[in-house]
Amino acid sequence: MSKGKVVLAYSGGLDTSCILVWLKEQGYDVITYLANIGQDEDFEAARKKAESLGAKKVFIEDLRTEFVEDFIWPAVQANAVYEDRYLLGTAVARPCIARRQVEIARREGAQYVSHGATGKGNDQIRFELTCYALYPEVKIIAPWRIPEFYNRFRGRTDLMEYAREHGIPVPVTPRAPWSMDANLMHISYESGILENPKSRAPADLYLMTKNPEDSPNVQDVLEIEFKKGVPVKVTNMNDGISKNTALDVFSYLNEIGGKHGVGRIDIVENRFIGMKSRGIYETPGGTVLLKAHLDIETFTMDKEVRRIKQGLGIKFSELVYNGFWYSPECNFLSVLKGQVYILGRESPKSLYNEELVSMDVQGDYDPCDASGFIRINAVRLREHHRLQGLSSTKQ
Amino acid sequence: MSKGKVVLAYSGGLDTSCILVWLKEQGYDVITYLANIGQDEDFEAARKKAESLGAKKVFIEDLRTEFVEDFIWPAVQANAVYEDRYLLGTAVARPCIARRQVEIARREGAQYVSHGATGKGNDQIRFELTCYALYPEVKIIAPWRIPEFYNRFRGRTDLMEYAREHGIPVPVTPRAPWSMDANLMHISYESGILENPKSRAPADLYLMTKNPEDSPNVQDVLEIEFKKGVPVKVTNMNDGISKNTALDVFSYLNEIGGKHGVGRIDIVENRFIGMKSRGIYETPGGTVLLKAHLDIETFTMDKEVRRIKQGLGIKFSELVYNGFWYSPECNFLSVLKGQVYILGRESPKSLYNEELVSMDVQGDYDPCDASGFIRINAVRLREHHRLQGLSSTKQ
Amino acid sequence: MSKGKVVLAYSGGLDTSCILVWLKEQGYDVITYLANIGQDEDFEAARKKAESLGAKKVFIEDLRTEFVEDFIWPAVQANAVYEDRYLLGTAVARPCIARRQVEIARREGAQYVSHGATGKGNDQIRFELTCYALYPEVKIIAPWRIPEFYNRFRGRTDLMEYAREHGIPVPVTPRAPWSMDANLMHISYESGILENPKSRAPADLYLMTKNPEDSPNVQDVLEIEFKKGVPVKVTNMNDGISKNTALDVFSYLNEIGGKHGVGRIDIVENRFIGMKSRGIYETPGGTVLLKAHLDIETFTMDKEVRRIKQGLGIKFSELVYNGFWYSPECNFLSVLKGQVYILGRESPKSLYNEELVSMDVQGDYDPCDASGFIRINAVRLREHHRLQGLSSTKQ
Amino acid sequence: MSKGKVVLAYSGGLDTSCILVWLKEQGYDVITYLANIGQDEDFEAARKKAESLGAKKVFIEDLRTEFVEDFIWPAVQANAVYEDRYLLGTAVARPCIARRQVEIARREGAQYVSHGATGKGNDQIRFELTCYALYPEVKIIAPWRIPEFYNRFRGRTDLMEYAREHGIPVPVTPRAPWSMDANLMHISYESGILENPKSRAPADLYLMTKNPEDSPNVQDVLEIEFKKGVPVKVTNMNDGISKNTALDVFSYLNEIGGKHGVGRIDIVENRFIGMKSRGIYETPGGTVLLKAHLDIETFTMDKEVRRIKQGLGIKFSELVYNGFWYSPECNFLSVLKGQVYILGRESPKSLYNEELVSMDVQGDYDPCDASGFIRINAVRLREHHRLQGLSSTKQ
Repeated sequence: MSKGKVVLAYSGGLDTSCILVWLKEQGYDVITYLANIGQDEDFEAARKKAESLGAKKVFIEDLRTEFVEDFIWPAVQANAVYEDRYLLGTAVARPCIARRQVEIARREGAQYVSHGATGKGNDQIRFELTCYALYPEVKIIAPWRIPEFYNRFRGRTDLMEYAREHGIPVPVTPRAPWSMDANLMHISYESGILENPKSRAPADLYLMTKNPEDSPNVQDVLEIEFKKGVPVKVTNMNDGISKNTALDVFSYLNEIGGKHGVGRIDIVENRFIGMKSRGIYETPGGTVLLKAHLDIETFTMDKEVRRIKQGLGIKFSELVYNGFWYSPECNFLSVLKGQVYILGRESPKSLYNEELVSMDVQGDYDPCDASGFIRINAVRLREHHRLQGLSSTKQ
Repeated sequence: MSKGKVVLAYSGGLDTSCILVWLKEQGYDVITYLANIGQDEDFEAARKKAESLGAKKVFIEDLRTEFVEDFIWPAVQANAVYEDRYLLGTAVARPCIARRQVEIARREGAQYVSHGATGKGNDQIRFELTCYALYPEVKIIAPWRIPEFYNRFRGRTDLMEYAREHGIPVPVTPRAPWSMDANLMHISYESGILENPKSRAPADLYLMTKNPEDSPNVQDVLEIEFKKGVPVKVTNMNDGISKNTALDVFSYLNEIGGKHGVGRIDIVENRFIGMKSRGIYETPGGTVLLKAHLDIETFTMDKEVRRIKQGLGIKFSELVYNGFWYSPECNFLSVLKGQVYILGRESPKSLYNEELVSMDVQGDYDPCDASGFIRINAVRLREHHRLQGLSSTKQ
Repeated sequence: MSKGKVVLAYSGGLDTSCILVWLKEQGYDVITYLANIGQDEDFEAARKKAESLGAKKVFIEDLRTEFVEDFIWPAVQANAVYEDRYLLGTAVARPCIARRQVEIARREGAQYVSHGATGKGNDQIRFELTCYALYPEVKIIAPWRIPEFYNRFRGRTDLMEYAREHGIPVPVTPRAPWSMDANLMHISYESGILENPKSRAPADLYLMTKNPEDSPNVQDVLEIEFKKGVPVKVTNMNDGISKNTALDVFSYLNEIGGKHGVGRIDIVENRFIGMKSRGIYETPGGTVLLKAHLDIETFTMDKEVRRIKQGLGIKFSELVYNGFWYSPECNFLSVLKGQVYILGRESPKSLYNEELVSMDVQGDYDPCDASGFIRINAVRLREHHRLQGLSSTKQ
Repeated sequence: MSKGKVVLAYSGGLDTSCILVWLKEQGYDVITYLANIGQDEDFEAARKKAESLGAKKVFIEDLRTEFVEDFIWPAVQANAVYEDRYLLGTAVARPCIARRQVEIARREGAQYVSHGATGKGNDQIRFELTCYALYPEVKIIAPWRIPEFYNRFRGRTDLMEYAREHGIPVPVTPRAPWSMDANLMHISYESGILENPKSRAPADLYLMTKNPEDSPNVQDVLEIEFKKGVPVKVTNMNDGISKNTALDVFSYLNEIGGKHGVGRIDIVENRFIGMKSRGIYETPGGTVLLKAHLDIETFTMDKEVRRIKQGLGIKFSELVYNGFWYSPECNFLSVLKGQVYILGRESPKSLYNEELVSMDVQGDYDPCDASGFIRINAVRLREHHRLQGLSSTKQ
């Protein structure tokens, strides 16, 4: 007698394979779901593995285009950066993955979803808040927070042993001494030897970007065309190569950015859960786009609107980091983003007033006005000085 | 019969030389003042030039150390960046220069100060707000905003002619087709051929940083020690070179940063006055420090304090850009900065809790807590979903 | 030979009557324009006066409905309050008046507009920024900032004398020892004897609200119905009286609020221009609506969306106070406001989850979740304590 | 064999009396602790009750003065208001109570603290975050979140029965159909019949304030003297009564405010936990002080400093509401508050510049300056208009 259906976010790795079998042991019908969001993976091997371990159904979904269009693009529009540095490559992937997971759960009549995220990280929150937001009645099985599970599997050795006992193929290549999360937008590296914030990352850790020391000395000059805050075309001025679909544009920027070692950071960040952790990220295409978008935005947007948007962008980034992609407040802030781009940018040069700014041309600007502007701005400052004088003589 | 004394911020160049003579013509006793804030200048030649043009007194002041300690360091503590990119190299120099200028004016009994800043720029505001804040009764002569002056000198040709008529030495080398402002912190380039935002900056424009294509392939590894948010020592791990005074530390970071082409930006920015302008900046040492300080700060500061400080830092940067260095609000925000660094950072590794964050160690953390945390955070989201359902069925 | 047409915002009073004649003297064709925004005024007398003083055309425009719908309603939606207390009754009226003024100027082919606002106040800015925003080529004549005007008219005596010389009817009743600005939304009182912040306002100053000591002891119970953040109907539960057009609703709230002495404030505020001034305001209907709207909003809006909107509302209020009603940033913020009201409020009681909040019913809420929520929120706090211990023992 | 000592926040009521006995049953040595923060209570009767129920020790602590000085005063300085209306009377009391509770726990060597707060409210969080912050190793027993407790006591009937079985005195007077929390600062009323947000509060609910309809028609005129943002003296100008200690000042303001029906609100608020709840509050003295402090602050503080402080005050209020009184960020924000009051306010009238603001006196202000100020502010607006024109003709 089954306890019901559970849709498990399955990676094909040791952890989620053990979870698959363990869920079966607990009496669930397990449906595995593996999202292709651009990571380097043998999806067919994963399918076979899941089937061989007893999955009732196996879903492998290519989400790359929707990942770029529905998740990376809004982050680009918002100049989303967490704590001044992290471009949120994992944080935007989680709601993308979970959205499809609950779609499948609803379609398959599954009451449960499950994932292999640990109990100390951000990803559990991002997964689950998305699930609760889009499928409020869902029940979530998070084995790494269930005492009977985590007390049984206290380390990798326990998993390996369980795997051997249950016919789960055990990885033969030794594991890197850190964990890694890869998608189209970035690769993140954390834990293991990286947990010591003083230890430098080994040079061969990076997979998406070349070591800047080894990158070519000849620049690639890219022309990126934006529409409504989103890149619609990239052209390499060196060789004329051009891309114009979301997925192609982003992949090409990854390629060129990676070739030049663009977008590596090594930081300590504050998890939602309240602790500090060290992470290393490489986000080549995203970094190029952040800089390009900041530039085109400052060029086209009114100064005060930009200030307001900047503050909201920081808020948006925190919300996304914390897992609130699907929330009324993110929704509210997103409306903003769309609103920003009211100016025709197809001919951006006309939006910048060379005559007004020119030092040599008077234009429609009377320099005398600045005198009044300054003196008026100084009214307050002079008052302040007057009062400080009063204070000090009085005391 | 003199109209009174005026302290003129004098650069030795054509513009302020003409202003010097013009002020004399108007009946003022002119005292020239030239601040050494690290720009490349023949100060003795400037002194002689001022004297030969009739300055009553000539002040040449070495402000380099106080520029670093009193102006650059607070900007580092605040992670001061204007509009996400500009590190404020000119904006922090202006109050430094003007502070001494009004000190001299007070000491010399001068009622007037004067400067050669144009009527469309930010610098006139930064100069004058500082002057009004520190010497509220001062009268300011800004020739480029006085119709009889700017109508007479409509272009460089007029200035050249006036110079020849009044024995002002005329520059013999052709002028660069842009204007430049240099100090210890950065060099900025704007106007002239740079006013067209599409035109690329010529490769030989940059003076402080090497072209990244020509920079060495071997990294310099620097260890920077901070105390109260300010660098107190830098050591090059490659060769053991070490610096430990404010001026030496900053100059050395400029040298190493410059060698590796660090800190170049080419941006469009919003002037206080409301117009957009294009500027190119190179800030090698400042860029190194910004990244280092962001890192040490995130490492040592509580997450929520950091969030509040981030918002205030953006406000602080706007204020400094707009010329409000000496204002009650900047003063108020500065108190903040001092407050930030309450944690002993001399042994920073102890401030990061490896056990707490470790994926392999349970530590003083119960993973089950996260379930409640997430579900509580989801209360609102599920309510939102419920209401949207109600709305749509009702309409 | 005329210098051109000028549209003068004309009040019928002594100041603008003198300005009318003075503008004629200067060689302009003067068109007067008087907006009816609910102030108590003999509009026909003003028309005749303007005609008799030589106005080429006289416009008297009833803007009351558009004042409520286009200006007061957005302020209600934004909970607009300046510096925690002032409900912006004058600030929202100025763009309303100036909008029509430039419409008339455009229609009549007038290059100039003029007004009688003083050079120290906020209103000059509010008028003129609206004019520049909606009619960027307009030329503005602000006599109180023109030396030949303000040096000639140094006080009321000079105006009276000029009036007598030029056949301008002089007011016969003595003037109140303060100035007053009245419209449908409020009456403000300032200057004169009120400039001393310690002096109490005389009891007979107030015109729109009864003295609370004299107000009836029996409450009026009002039921206000909102749609999209705007009141669409008010019903007095005591007597069944009901209103349902914008103008009627707002006027009725003024009547009932005024009867109970609602909405009087006596404050010191910070003008845009940088100085502090003392103002007394009575805003009966606006105060009722602010409280009602805050209530319905908290009731229907998601908590985090509300927080974001609250911050933006403060920004919006500052912008409106400062005269930036017609600006890209106010426009940007307005979009926000519209967005807020996505929840069906026609049946508001269903939007509040009694079961969820009830202390007696468990509902779909597991109290154990709170333990985890709290402990997770405490992770940071306990770390902070740990580090402070470290700091203090180390130092 | 005892499980250890637990310090129970004991009110003397039915709930915490049952918890006392239940904790004993579970094997703990129970120390009761009852804080006097100004509520109306028979403290001696509570002491006897606790002793008779088996408390090992009984602490009854008069915290009234420290409640005013250490908790209410900082809230006054911050103009602390949650969601525009709630003055945080309960939220500031909780850390005051819990601070002493953990002091006692440490002193008595108790590893545990316990409280009777429910699992759906804010108070559990406020209590526990304070405990964790000040005594990080503490263990907290929150019976209303422990399944074996809350499943046993599903309603008041279960508690009554348990009380009868265990010799706990049962209240004889019928309970009000709502719950109440009283302290020196306010009384709050919620739940029961108040949970329906449409039901009006009964007229006899209020205990601290008179019904406005019944309040006297003669005003009391109070003069309140502030030092460093805190009231140091209050004088009633009607009868000359004067108070000058923290506790006396605040109690007197409660008395006079209460007499005039000041400070009643009936609101829906957002709990930290994410749900909306309805609360009724009366805060007579706190309301008087909020208005007085806002006034003196605007009068004495620089405009821009005030703006920054306003934003931080909102943040501070959220933090206090959410239970983060003892947190690094509240600490950080508190520093701010102290900083605000740099101006000598003992002679406040000199801090307001009558000459500068006067409409009749020119003072040190040139009205022409305003022209430039306005035109400079309009640069951006006119550009915006130009671009919109471009956009619309292009589309």
